[in-house]
Amino acid sequence: MITKGRLEAFSDAVIAIIITIMVLELKVPHDASVEALKPLIPIFISYILSFIYIGIYWNNHHHMLHAAKSVNGRVLWANMHLLFWLSMIPFVTAWMGENHFEMWPVVFYGIVLILNSIAYYILAQTLVKHHGKDSLIATAVGHDRKGKVSTALYAVGIGLAFVNAWIGIAVYTVVAIIWLIPDTRIERVLVEGEKH
Amino acid sequence: MITKGRLEAFSDAVIAIIITIMVLELKVPHDASVEALKPLIPIFISYILSFIYIGIYWNNHHHMLHAAKSVNGRVLWANMHLLFWLSMIPFVTAWMGENHFEMWPVVFYGIVLILNSIAYYILAQTLVKHHGKDSLIATAVGHDRKGKVSTALYAVGIGLAFVNAWIGIAVYTVVAIIWLIPDTRIERVLVEGEKH
Amino acid sequence: MITKGRLEAFSDAVIAIIITIMVLELKVPHDASVEALKPLIPIFISYILSFIYIGIYWNNHHHMLHAAKSVNGRVLWANMHLLFWLSMIPFVTAWMGENHFEMWPVVFYGIVLILNSIAYYILAQTLVKHHGKDSLIATAVGHDRKGKVSTALYAVGIGLAFVNAWIGIAVYTVVAIIWLIPDTRIERVLVEGEKH
Amino acid sequence: MITKGRLEAFSDAVIAIIITIMVLELKVPHDASVEALKPLIPIFISYILSFIYIGIYWNNHHHMLHAAKSVNGRVLWANMHLLFWLSMIPFVTAWMGENHFEMWPVVFYGIVLILNSIAYYILAQTLVKHHGKDSLIATAVGHDRKGKVSTALYAVGIGLAFVNAWIGIAVYTVVAIIWLIPDTRIERVLVEGEKH
Repeated sequence: MITKGRLEAFSDAVIAIIITIMVLELKVPHDASVEALKPLIPIFISYILSFIYIGIYWNNHHHMLHAAKSVNGRVLWANMHLLFWLSMIPFVTAWMGENHFEMWPVVFYGIVLILNSIAYYILAQTLVKHHGKDSLIATAVGHDRKGKVSTALYAVGIGLAFVNAWIGIAVYTVVAIIWLIPDTRIERVLVEGEKH
Repeated sequence: MITKGRLEAFSDAVIAIIITIMVLELKVPHDASVEALKPLIPIFISYILSFIYIGIYWNNHHHMLHAAKSVNGRVLWANMHLLFWLSMIPFVTAWMGENHFEMWPVVFYGIVLILNSIAYYILAQTLVKHHGKDSLIATAVGHDRKGKVSTALYAVGIGLAFVNAWIGIAVYTVVAIIWLIPDTRIERVLVEGEKH
Repeated sequence: MITKGRLEAFSDAVIAIIITIMVLELKVPHDASVEALKPLIPIFISYILSFIYIGIYWNNHHHMLHAAKSVNGRVLWANMHLLFWLSMIPFVTAWMGENHFEMWPVVFYGIVLILNSIAYYILAQTLVKHHGKDSLIATAVGHDRKGKVSTALYAVGIGLAFVNAWIGIAVYTVVAIIWLIPDTRIERVLVEGEKH
Repeated sequence: MITKGRLEAFSDAVIAIIITIMVLELKVPHDASVEALKPLIPIFISYILSFIYIGIYWNNHHHMLHAAKSVNGRVLWANMHLLFWLSMIPFVTAWMGENHFEMWPVVFYGIVLILNSIAYYILAQTLVKHHGKDSLIATAVGHDRKGKVSTALYAVGIGLAFVNAWIGIAVYTVVAIIWLIPDTRIERVLVEGEKH
């Protein structure tokens, strides 16, 4: 009954706004010197990291829903739940950037990343349940090893952030890089699925 | 003459912006301690409540327009009217959150919820009038018992907020939960409608 | 070469953002009393007026592009020009609201309305030129008496605002009401056009 | 696997937000006098320049993707990269406007323009690589003389900004005008391509 197209359009709009409002945290300096930009460097770095993360989520969301044939009420709310945690990213990004990657902001950044990965996992499982275990999407989502490894790495990153916040950031960055490496799994399954 | 698709797209964009700008009220603390997050807890809670409410409206709006065959000028303005009151939600949400759920903000939050439910009712009736009493949408909207009960409960919540603001919040939360429980009515009617 | 659909989608998104960011000017009071809302009343009133105006522009834009068969580079830039002046509405709205409808803000509000009506006229003429004088859109746009009357009324409103700002506001409100009264002209022409 | 349509829709939404949030930098004066608008004039001018630039990017993006038949993961990330640098435009625009076109902000404005033109070039090349050297898009993008000239002119503008910031602005404006002059190249190639 709920059309997949409108769910995608709504998610796209929300994700587009989330990714763009982060730039509002780059407060314009009143001074015209190069030095005036210096305090913005950590905010800029945290912006880049979050921009990549939200890009990854948009990309994965895009792929997953492409493999879906339809959606239902549960999928819709699982999707809203994911959008909710994505909407927390600008907040922790700004908090982390403004406080120059101190411990607690880095820890909370990791917590929000974990909550996002859990929300994504719930959405994936809801979609699989809706389509059945033998569906294209079930094969495409698979065991989601990459997702589980990410969640574990976020936890490691949070733990290590208590030792040194920069190690935490390094771990989060590694996860982002893992996702940037093209994931041919879903693509392969879909191509095969379309052959039949 | 007015296409349903563009009305949906515009509504989606406005609702997506409304749901996302609320997060801008979570002002980033300048302090990196966990304690710095404490004052944000009420704002966060009010954000969750409003996020769910706007999600419910988007969901219902989606369903209702799915059952519509076309729209006219009156529908368009009834829709704008609903979007107007939805756009008031971020304001009352922030006011309520920043003032730790004091009486007046909670009362006004309820008033905005009532105005939204009335605006939704007007939109539904305008759509029914446009499609005729024997139309699919007329059957789908039906007597809208759930909508009327919600409106009544908001009024009760407002009244009780004068006694204790938290009771008001509790009532608003109950209404949200009622809506989160899947409403199979419209879906059933539509499925039957498509059989013919 | 330029698709009408993407032009519509982009315009919808920009207009949706414009209509929604206005609400950010309703600064949340730090006080939880009803009195704290009082200074927001003029901002709220100016928000309603502008919400209706942007709704009217979206509605008319929607209708006009529905009658268009295609767009070209000139149309695209005429459309950007209109979006530019629409994007000025939140600024003059907030300036007028915050200064309790004093003379200069009311005058500038009128100037922005005039510039918008001119931009809309240019867009209409560009579309007519692109489709030819015997096209459906040429008949639909026609002499655009309503548009010309509006532009004249804005000028009158600006002039009268120098005498008394509230008279200016009254004139702007009259124009909004004129547009809210359903304009069956374009609809009629389109219906007849589709008969052939 | 990745649909072109959703990439376009997401890009449109992000660009629409970028072009619109710039207006939030036009801080509403608390004073109702005409003089209160004076300090906003440089911000207004920088807004116009950036509005045109983002309009040009949207227009070119639109054209280029229209010529594309499909997209892949690399295209998606090349597109995200472009959106990232576009999202920096509101920041440098506001910095330049608020500091009345002083040297460093004008230099950084130019740097962001260069980074955008490089990002656009990368996106174009990624699309060409994806479609093959004999594809419609390869012919349409061609040697991209205009793009290369622009990039060179930005560098010249940056250099001259160190002498006098206004000369830098003049050069950036010239580039904008070059792009506003309709580029019939892609359109011609596409029309010919569709003939076959």
